[in-house]
Amino acid sequence: MLWRGGAPAEWVDAVAVEEPLELRLHTPDGPLPLGVLMRTPGHDRELLLGWLVAEALLPEDLTLHPDAENPNVWHLHTPDFARLAAGARLAVSSSACGVCGSGSVERLMTRASPPVWAGGPLDVAWLSGLPEALAAAQPGFAATGGLHGAALFTPDGARLAAFEDVGRHNAVDKLVGWAQDRRRLPLSNAVLVVSSRAGFEIVQKAVTAGVAVVVTVGAATSLAVDTAAAFGVTLCGFARGDRLTMYAGAHRFAAVVQAGPPPDD
Amino acid sequence: MLWRGGAPAEWVDAVAVEEPLELRLHTPDGPLPLGVLMRTPGHDRELLLGWLVAEALLPEDLTLHPDAENPNVWHLHTPDFARLAAGARLAVSSSACGVCGSGSVERLMTRASPPVWAGGPLDVAWLSGLPEALAAAQPGFAATGGLHGAALFTPDGARLAAFEDVGRHNAVDKLVGWAQDRRRLPLSNAVLVVSSRAGFEIVQKAVTAGVAVVVTVGAATSLAVDTAAAFGVTLCGFARGDRLTMYAGAHRFAAVVQAGPPPDD
Repeated sequence: MLWRGGAPAEWVDAVAVEEPLELRLHTPDGPLPLGVLMRTPGHDRELLLGWLVAEALLPEDLTLHPDAENPNVWHLHTPDFARLAAGARLAVSSSACGVCGSGSVERLMTRASPPVWAGGPLDVAWLSGLPEALAAAQPGFAATGGLHGAALFTPDGARLAAFEDVGRHNAVDKLVGWAQDRRRLPLSNAVLVVSSRAGFEIVQKAVTAGVAVVVTVGAATSLAVDTAAAFGVTLCGFARGDRLTMYAGAHRFAAVVQAGPPPDD
Repeated sequence: MLWRGGAPAEWVDAVAVEEPLELRLHTPDGPLPLGVLMRTPGHDRELLLGWLVAEALLPEDLTLHPDAENPNVWHLHTPDFARLAAGARLAVSSSACGVCGSGSVERLMTRASPPVWAGGPLDVAWLSGLPEALAAAQPGFAATGGLHGAALFTPDGARLAAFEDVGRHNAVDKLVGWAQDRRRLPLSNAVLVVSSRAGFEIVQKAVTAGVAVVVTVGAATSLAVDTAAAFGVTLCGFARGDRLTMYAGAHRFAAVVQAGPPPDD
């Protein structure tokens, strides 16, 4: 119920749907829950594939299907179950010296390489306009104000795909899973645009999917910037209108190379 | 670097700090990582205490201290280690029928009761103004645009405490840990105000801390609304200026009870 100016204005509100999703790995010793994600139902296969890519758990050979009775449970069968079970147990680090920002970047380096950018020089005006193009693919946000969106755009301006979810990380996972299902990884020819801020996990997901250019509507965190810099990812935030904050990878903008920093910087 | 109108405008940006924090439980069999949180350093004790409250893991008797060498590692010693170790292992559910929104609410009911509200009838104008009062306690957001904030307000308008963090859940955990450290739980005399949207976890944290009234700047999700309704929590979103969306618990507003729904609703 919307209450405005001291009186009730509307009595019905659309809300973003949030439900748990459990991925269950089948092993000879029985099923093992790999993880539970709070997500907006829909495109669950894409979400799970993308999550497996980001966690470096995706097996070469797998079958993935929803439970016959509960749509919030999916089953994963793979001959590579032992690696996945071990990976899930190792998800929490136990090395004291590694628990820091640089440790997080180093761990990512053991399983991912710097993404390659196959597009040409970047243009500020084009990138800062992408959030508006993303907004056109966010009907759920328009209705509820409660969903994040993520989309992939090619350098020629085409939108490859777009997804919405209550979780910004889920929206990115859905994109990556969509691309994985079509054997389009690594995404060296696509810009990732996200309606949220950029934290470490957003950049991690970009790197593991081979995305070299990331644009967000909100701010970036210190660890997101450090990770982007370490992997040569171009990371831009606060993209709206004619403005853009370049946090890392400004070398891909021809205009910036020409401008250079001011002499007193 | 801020780029505006086709030219560089500013060359230095303040970014929100994001670093991992590991909580290590000490058991006779050796240390066990209970969890790793990506957080903004500062008030780590409050963060960890609040997280333990929300996870229903807080022991009666504990000592909590940072590692001598790595400030991103904290050590937890408690005679109740066996329950905590088991609780950490059980964090991932394995019951198919429970993996749904109502299952999440039911699991919360096994370990938390409906919060009691000790304040009087709620006033729309006062509640919708609280995000502005929160903003005054968000210097980090003002500088970086990358931090969430959370604060507790008493019915007489006093701000009990406020914290910032890259994670909205962390900001709430810090508040609850602050209150726990001062033996002020349950928080039956405080309104929780959060700069983000309200998802299931925000309401879960409110319920476990005994908070009966929650106000957020953004939207609420379906599961947040269901959980608030099940626990009698007043949940308001989109609070700004003179507007407010009441998602649940409107019975605490005297004006709403008088107004009632329109006849054709």
